[in-house]
Amino acid sequence: MIRNICKQRFSGRILLSTRSLTAKKLVYEGYGDPAEVVKLQEFELPDSLGPNEVQIRWNAAPVNPADINQLQGVYPVKPKLPAIAGNEGSATVEKVGPKVSVFKPGDLVIPSQSGLGTWRTHSIHGEDEMFPLDPKLNHIHASTFQVNPPTAYRMLHDFVKLQKGDTVIQNGANSAVGRFVIQLCRVFGWKSINIVRERPDIQDLKNDLKQLGADVVYTEEELAKNIREISNVRLALNCVGGKSSFQLCRTLTDQGCMVTYGGMSKQPTQTPTGPLIFKDISLRGFWMSHWYTVPENLAERKRMYQVLADLFINGGIKPAPYTEHRLGEYKEVLGIGLQAKKKPIFVFE
Amino acid sequence: MIRNICKQRFSGRILLSTRSLTAKKLVYEGYGDPAEVVKLQEFELPDSLGPNEVQIRWNAAPVNPADINQLQGVYPVKPKLPAIAGNEGSATVEKVGPKVSVFKPGDLVIPSQSGLGTWRTHSIHGEDEMFPLDPKLNHIHASTFQVNPPTAYRMLHDFVKLQKGDTVIQNGANSAVGRFVIQLCRVFGWKSINIVRERPDIQDLKNDLKQLGADVVYTEEELAKNIREISNVRLALNCVGGKSSFQLCRTLTDQGCMVTYGGMSKQPTQTPTGPLIFKDISLRGFWMSHWYTVPENLAERKRMYQVLADLFINGGIKPAPYTEHRLGEYKEVLGIGLQAKKKPIFVFE
Repeated sequence: MIRNICKQRFSGRILLSTRSLTAKKLVYEGYGDPAEVVKLQEFELPDSLGPNEVQIRWNAAPVNPADINQLQGVYPVKPKLPAIAGNEGSATVEKVGPKVSVFKPGDLVIPSQSGLGTWRTHSIHGEDEMFPLDPKLNHIHASTFQVNPPTAYRMLHDFVKLQKGDTVIQNGANSAVGRFVIQLCRVFGWKSINIVRERPDIQDLKNDLKQLGADVVYTEEELAKNIREISNVRLALNCVGGKSSFQLCRTLTDQGCMVTYGGMSKQPTQTPTGPLIFKDISLRGFWMSHWYTVPENLAERKRMYQVLADLFINGGIKPAPYTEHRLGEYKEVLGIGLQAKKKPIFVFE
Repeated sequence: MIRNICKQRFSGRILLSTRSLTAKKLVYEGYGDPAEVVKLQEFELPDSLGPNEVQIRWNAAPVNPADINQLQGVYPVKPKLPAIAGNEGSATVEKVGPKVSVFKPGDLVIPSQSGLGTWRTHSIHGEDEMFPLDPKLNHIHASTFQVNPPTAYRMLHDFVKLQKGDTVIQNGANSAVGRFVIQLCRVFGWKSINIVRERPDIQDLKNDLKQLGADVVYTEEELAKNIREISNVRLALNCVGGKSSFQLCRTLTDQGCMVTYGGMSKQPTQTPTGPLIFKDISLRGFWMSHWYTVPENLAERKRMYQVLADLFINGGIKPAPYTEHRLGEYKEVLGIGLQAKKKPIFVFE
């Protein structure tokens, strides 16, 4: 929290302005190279709150691939410009308007929906724009709570009714979502077959994912070689597309389902035609942001959040490796962007 | 019906054998070139019927692409060999066993399931192996009733709830199923966009399909050129795969569905990843033979059969062009096989 010292000095109305606050935000007015289009701006936070508004102090906000794509202008959702960057983050409630009933100062919250603009130190919102989290959650874990863990959770629950011992296959297993898929499969008693790209440190990665609970970790090449020995897979999770999605489909059993949530290869999602027709497999897609917009999902959101929060708190699941950054480092952070091995997280404390 | 003259001559028991019957069948003992592996055999039809058996005389049996693929050994369903070829056909009941209640002589029937072996003049079956058809149906129309019209009907009804005026897109629109899709869309009040391959007589084909009721007929190239003007398509029917399936998916609106029932291009079925995720489109498959095996579908089968029979009888729908052949011409028929522009149908009368 930074007091608005400059203004105090030049305005001469020192006593009247001591309660106003200079906050910071990362703003963009056009699309392009993320490190170039984003600008750090200071702004004065209004001193007054509407009856149903809450003032929050952001704790932390991750830099997700979707944020980068949005800045590049290649994401299907384009905010009205100028916009504040960032879609995910955790915050603590500082002040509440007189008619706010859901929140009190000190509460831990995250945005109700995507697109709020989370790369900033403070903001004021309608209370319905925020969603409560278990206050026992670590603030940094809470900042990456909204997208990846629920994405893994929903994809594992909403498409196929998995029984204990059933098998799930996924590509991009080293992604943030992929790591939650591995951990949730371990927690719920499902076997996971995890496909990653070949790389120099492949054995380290395999050990890392196996420590999270992965039953099998294969490179794409190893999957192709062993595919005839894999059967009875009920659910495939695809964030790659192209040949990788084709191979995933080949492992599906009757009425198995492949859920696509990304297309890292930039190739069309592919499936062999035979299993579509003769095994009645299906291809679906999943988008967490859309799920949150469906009013009927509210009760299930609360229930799922408690399940996931409990798992975070008792150490049953943990986020993918991350690095902490100050907001002022945004040019370096957005410069490395998607290439970063660890997820960059802005920490505002 | 051919009396067993030879046997009568050499057995000397002329009077006793006058009621036995020499029938003909097309049998195969291995997979390969259909014209080579299939053999025409005569056989004597048993004179006695079990209590629940029916003796039928086949009227007509089409040569479908799936029959050819089965003879080649490339179809996923492989009958126990030696087997009688053919999966579809219409027959008339000649005699019934004493406990048969469903059928009487003169009834028009088709097989309950695929794999019965229809390329033969006569056979004896359990009554549950046959399914009744409206006796007013033309026998040749009845012989192609089991697969193509219900495939079109079910794909148009079971995946998306179409409203009057909704749009359906399909590739392979000149296929036997494709022509029923066009006609059923016309009957039920849905718009159809029909994609065909470029060919020398393209204008004749377009006129032909428009006469059936097609709203739009495009070549694959015309579709690619005009794709941005097509939107709001709720259902896509795909029997080609590869790039063609990719283009079909691009036209789907939110929660649209592409149903695959064939893979003529022998390329994987493709879909752009964006619509899967952000428009929640889905990819499904359909296989008529499997639908028939689900006991819960029995009542709906009867209901649909009457709808389709009424349409055939009142001229609302008609089959794709066909040519009639005698069983003895099987070598020529199977030699041209899939290349035939018109569907070959064995007619036994």
